[in-house]
Amino acid sequence: MALGADSYDILLQRGLLAKAGTLLNLGRKVLVVTDSGVPAQYAAQLAAQCAQPVLVTVQQGEGAKSFDGLQTLLGAMLDAGFHRGDCVVAVGGGVVGDLAGFAAATYMRGIDFYNIPTTSLSQVDSSIGGKTAINFNGVKNIVGTFYQPPRVLVDPDLLATLPPRQLAAGFAEAIKAGMIADEALLALFETGAAEARLEEVLLRALRVKKDVVEQDEKEAGLRRILNFGHTLGHGIESVYGLGGLLHGECVALGMLPMCKTPALRQRLSSVLARYHLPTHAAFDPDLVFAAVCHDKKGAGNKTAIVEVETAGHALMRTVENEALRQLLVREAKEGIGA
Amino acid sequence: MALGADSYDILLQRGLLAKAGTLLNLGRKVLVVTDSGVPAQYAAQLAAQCAQPVLVTVQQGEGAKSFDGLQTLLGAMLDAGFHRGDCVVAVGGGVVGDLAGFAAATYMRGIDFYNIPTTSLSQVDSSIGGKTAINFNGVKNIVGTFYQPPRVLVDPDLLATLPPRQLAAGFAEAIKAGMIADEALLALFETGAAEARLEEVLLRALRVKKDVVEQDEKEAGLRRILNFGHTLGHGIESVYGLGGLLHGECVALGMLPMCKTPALRQRLSSVLARYHLPTHAAFDPDLVFAAVCHDKKGAGNKTAIVEVETAGHALMRTVENEALRQLLVREAKEGIGA
Repeated sequence: MALGADSYDILLQRGLLAKAGTLLNLGRKVLVVTDSGVPAQYAAQLAAQCAQPVLVTVQQGEGAKSFDGLQTLLGAMLDAGFHRGDCVVAVGGGVVGDLAGFAAATYMRGIDFYNIPTTSLSQVDSSIGGKTAINFNGVKNIVGTFYQPPRVLVDPDLLATLPPRQLAAGFAEAIKAGMIADEALLALFETGAAEARLEEVLLRALRVKKDVVEQDEKEAGLRRILNFGHTLGHGIESVYGLGGLLHGECVALGMLPMCKTPALRQRLSSVLARYHLPTHAAFDPDLVFAAVCHDKKGAGNKTAIVEVETAGHALMRTVENEALRQLLVREAKEGIGA
Repeated sequence: MALGADSYDILLQRGLLAKAGTLLNLGRKVLVVTDSGVPAQYAAQLAAQCAQPVLVTVQQGEGAKSFDGLQTLLGAMLDAGFHRGDCVVAVGGGVVGDLAGFAAATYMRGIDFYNIPTTSLSQVDSSIGGKTAINFNGVKNIVGTFYQPPRVLVDPDLLATLPPRQLAAGFAEAIKAGMIADEALLALFETGAAEARLEEVLLRALRVKKDVVEQDEKEAGLRRILNFGHTLGHGIESVYGLGGLLHGECVALGMLPMCKTPALRQRLSSVLARYHLPTHAAFDPDLVFAAVCHDKKGAGNKTAIVEVETAGHALMRTVENEALRQLLVREAKEGIGA
């Protein structure tokens, strides 16, 4: 990831967790952060390679991304006498990475943060790019920073323990990457080769994100193409996420109405179905519209959306909120709400 | 302030507050943050120049620099529907700047932050350099970020309402700047010309800080010279701050033992006395030593200290904690503890 003084390496290889001690500077105090949904042996394996590990296991789920969760991590560092030269390592999915990254970004105005993603979602997407965040007053990711790690270790072996539904939900972000910037990546899913060629999937998806982030680290413009499927997806997630839909599943649903041709939509729909990702969901268009408007990507009466007309090429456009509402009403009747 | 992409202007002129609307982009939602110790007309004057002002007045004092204070500001922005293009303006001293800056740095991963310092302490020092922070678990400034404002307005007229003791306490940081890097600035205080030549004092003190921050924004090395007087000063402040000593007064006391010659110490002592800053204080060396060790600038068994042998030139050195303890015991008997 080439970001001037904040540049860093993303290593992708099977077996990296076992070698973390030789790849990261763990000869100091290390806050190892994981959650109760991650197999405990991963964090234990990392902690065993640290000179002075302090292990914190937060509760699984978005609830950990809170000021309470943040204070738990900061308090643990303070109690253990962490100084500026010490570090934080996240061993988990997006929730753990977002929370641990924010704690590292703010403890003593920033200490080193390493990320070892353990889910497909975080391995293809959230572990790179430097976004850290917690939720506040019911709004997702509303408080956080951009904070780049000095190194990210992506170990595909860690996905072996991931339940199939979680694995597929993470793949939705890789399918997104294919849709906006890499048709060959989309084709890997289309032909059902994704699992057999897992490293290639991860590499291609990470490369799409890396290329975008390098050009627009702070999301001033181009980086918004990574939000393909997320504008509606977040809205659906706000309303129905607690009812059981995973983030990646909401993104899958959010991508479909943003396909500009029926042919492309059909193509995407087939890919999603192949990985048992949802292509239809009943939803209340008014509730989802209200959630979209409440979401941070909108501003004023207009909302920035990302569409795809030809696989591998994203288009950015600003639409009136009313047009978005009408789209949702239409979809609820005919499309993803069938 | 030349910091690459994060460079910004620091404007210093009488009457700037009245012209803020022409100097800052206030044609948007603006969170105006002040505290109950700042004359209310300053924030009101700024708010009157904003398209959509939201005014928050926090309680005066360090207590506002807390997670509660932070959530108050973030919640106010969320309630008012602030987006990435909106901004925060601090109208106050160091507490307001640190807190408002941290809120701006973390709301939606960072929105514009302008600073209009109203105290001598913040006008000569804390309003530039990009340090934001809150206190946590009894440790000062332990949580925060480096976050540079796009513009800082220093209006010396605002100091007219500052109580003389507060004014002098802020001057302690300017005296510090003179001691470490600008003997002519020290001489302005020595000759009693500081108040009559206020703009020159502010300009020179800000220039010292600017030059240092430009070379070492994130305090990897050189920036630590700005901590002259602060290692012991923070320790004294931790123990006796609530008992009535102001930050600048503690810095004054903390500088004296760090003068490497009796002649320089005498010179500094005379300058401090001229501005009614403390040159003697009874203190418990063990309590202050414990506070210094607890302070974030120490690491392990050693502490980084800054000394001055010749006015205008700072020296950095790492000493054993035990040597620092002995110094404090000596001082408590003979020097600042007389």
